[in-house]
Amino acid sequence: MNPNVFYGKMGVTIKQIAADLKLAISTVSKALSDSHEISPETKARVFEYAERMEYKPNPYASGLKDNRSRNIAVVLPEIADSFFASAIDGIEAAAQTKGYHVMIYLTHEDAQREHAIISELRHRRVDGVLISVVSNSSDIPHLQGLYEHGVPVVFFDRVHTAIDTANVVTNDFDSAYSAASLLIRKGCKRITFLALRGDLNIIKDRTAGYLKAINDHGIDTQLNPVLTCGHQEDETMTLIRQRLTQEDSPDGVICSSEKLTTQTYSVCHRLKISIPEDIKIIGFSHLPIASLLRPSLTTVTQPAFEMGRTAATLLLNALDKKRTILKKESIVLPSMLIERDSTG
Amino acid sequence: MNPNVFYGKMGVTIKQIAADLKLAISTVSKALSDSHEISPETKARVFEYAERMEYKPNPYASGLKDNRSRNIAVVLPEIADSFFASAIDGIEAAAQTKGYHVMIYLTHEDAQREHAIISELRHRRVDGVLISVVSNSSDIPHLQGLYEHGVPVVFFDRVHTAIDTANVVTNDFDSAYSAASLLIRKGCKRITFLALRGDLNIIKDRTAGYLKAINDHGIDTQLNPVLTCGHQEDETMTLIRQRLTQEDSPDGVICSSEKLTTQTYSVCHRLKISIPEDIKIIGFSHLPIASLLRPSLTTVTQPAFEMGRTAATLLLNALDKKRTILKKESIVLPSMLIERDSTG
Repeated sequence: MNPNVFYGKMGVTIKQIAADLKLAISTVSKALSDSHEISPETKARVFEYAERMEYKPNPYASGLKDNRSRNIAVVLPEIADSFFASAIDGIEAAAQTKGYHVMIYLTHEDAQREHAIISELRHRRVDGVLISVVSNSSDIPHLQGLYEHGVPVVFFDRVHTAIDTANVVTNDFDSAYSAASLLIRKGCKRITFLALRGDLNIIKDRTAGYLKAINDHGIDTQLNPVLTCGHQEDETMTLIRQRLTQEDSPDGVICSSEKLTTQTYSVCHRLKISIPEDIKIIGFSHLPIASLLRPSLTTVTQPAFEMGRTAATLLLNALDKKRTILKKESIVLPSMLIERDSTG
Repeated sequence: MNPNVFYGKMGVTIKQIAADLKLAISTVSKALSDSHEISPETKARVFEYAERMEYKPNPYASGLKDNRSRNIAVVLPEIADSFFASAIDGIEAAAQTKGYHVMIYLTHEDAQREHAIISELRHRRVDGVLISVVSNSSDIPHLQGLYEHGVPVVFFDRVHTAIDTANVVTNDFDSAYSAASLLIRKGCKRITFLALRGDLNIIKDRTAGYLKAINDHGIDTQLNPVLTCGHQEDETMTLIRQRLTQEDSPDGVICSSEKLTTQTYSVCHRLKISIPEDIKIIGFSHLPIASLLRPSLTTVTQPAFEMGRTAATLLLNALDKKRTILKKESIVLPSMLIERDSTG
């Protein structure tokens, strides 16, 4: 809650204050907004009485005056994902501290929906936007327009670097490099990297990190390919099943998202492919119960809470200073590679 | 997004329209609000021009006028829990369809924080509130006040029946009864029911359903107790560990929340207690990956998405009809007992 705003009893209006003090409504209104048209004596009388009656300005009227809502929007692909749930936790923590309110908008990976949400946000309701973009054809001009029209934007995790603003990411390239190196060290000869269709920075960086590791270790990239998956569950499960049952099937898999990780586990369970004996698995995942999986899952764990909190803090600090343009900068918070039984 | 509101180009103000049409600002303002003081001809001129210029009223001004923000608040204990994440998904789906915006407030099981949030919401920003209350001493008068002052409230999952409004719950009593009956059928003689401290309806109902089953099966309740856990992770883990290592330790556990379930699993893994050989476990949990746990977890799975969507729909339908008092009713959506290996 905003510590600077005090709300007391309800229902005391300017009209009532005016009647009680035998003043015109406009006089009370001007006095409360500290107008130079009103004498210091009258202002003092009005302030004192308003305070005693615990008068609270109508928030919409206040919004009209200083054009601030103290609302921020969080636009993200989904909420039933432990990374995003944890990031919202961090955003909410920062917002509560600074007296801002958090509005949630889910795009469900639908670029049209993202466009509609941004359209709505251009014109109302929020002082700033935190966004993690959809995986395919996110609407850069629209986002740019939001920013240019005085609604600052901070990206987190899934970013557009084409827009000159701040973003908060993790070290995706390095994490994927480390994950691939771990599998190679554990003796894997045929690794598959499961990527996600689209043009997300995080997937590009993870893919590049993986390929660099394969290359640096002088390993055959033909035998260690990248497999691009879609967003339909059925389709992806089929693709993974085909890959795991073909000739020369992989002995190691790196899953570039949480959903791909749980899908790969499901396929292995159903086909009775033993992890880690037949195949070793590493997932980019923030799952708090990774250690309880069968077998416990080796993860690249992102600092989701910190990423959310840092992005929100950048935005709110700018808003506090009434700045609507943020310096172009990329804050990189490190992920952790946590070894468990799935690579044992 | 609200399909009824059109937003076009930005920045065209009443002032500019007035200047362009050589009218007083107050005349344009009154014309746009369809005032009887303005002639039909002038109104037509203003409307036509405003439309051509894609004029959009300041949303705060609109809020001031009809006292509607089209924002609803969702107040809930946490977001990094698959039940609540899924419920928000359902709420957001209903809100998007009806053109409402969703604001998220997390109480973190802190009654004071809930009080502060409700205080804030009494006075501003939202047309209605969806709430799942904190587990201990939730502030009934404060919530009642919110409701009485024209901000309708709908409870979901964790409810206060003392407040005469609608709520959406699941069949907690029956589900716990079924869970206990399953363990008894599987041969368990010493079941422990893990409850949560506080006075939550859901925990009371689950506990009552459990005790009824124990009683109906003519089993000794001394050997099949209820163990009440707190909200501190360390403290709860210690309590569970003590319970699972004492003499006459349980051969079956029902965990009344998702967190208690994962904590019980963690303790079993650490102490190398075999599930289901040494102990059978059922969890009230919405975990999408229950089937991937070691071993796969038998769950009472709540219809989280539907509960969220139903609660939001009740609230938004009332708001659409400008009703701020909701009929006292309890909508009960059934949970499902899904048997997996942890009770095998």
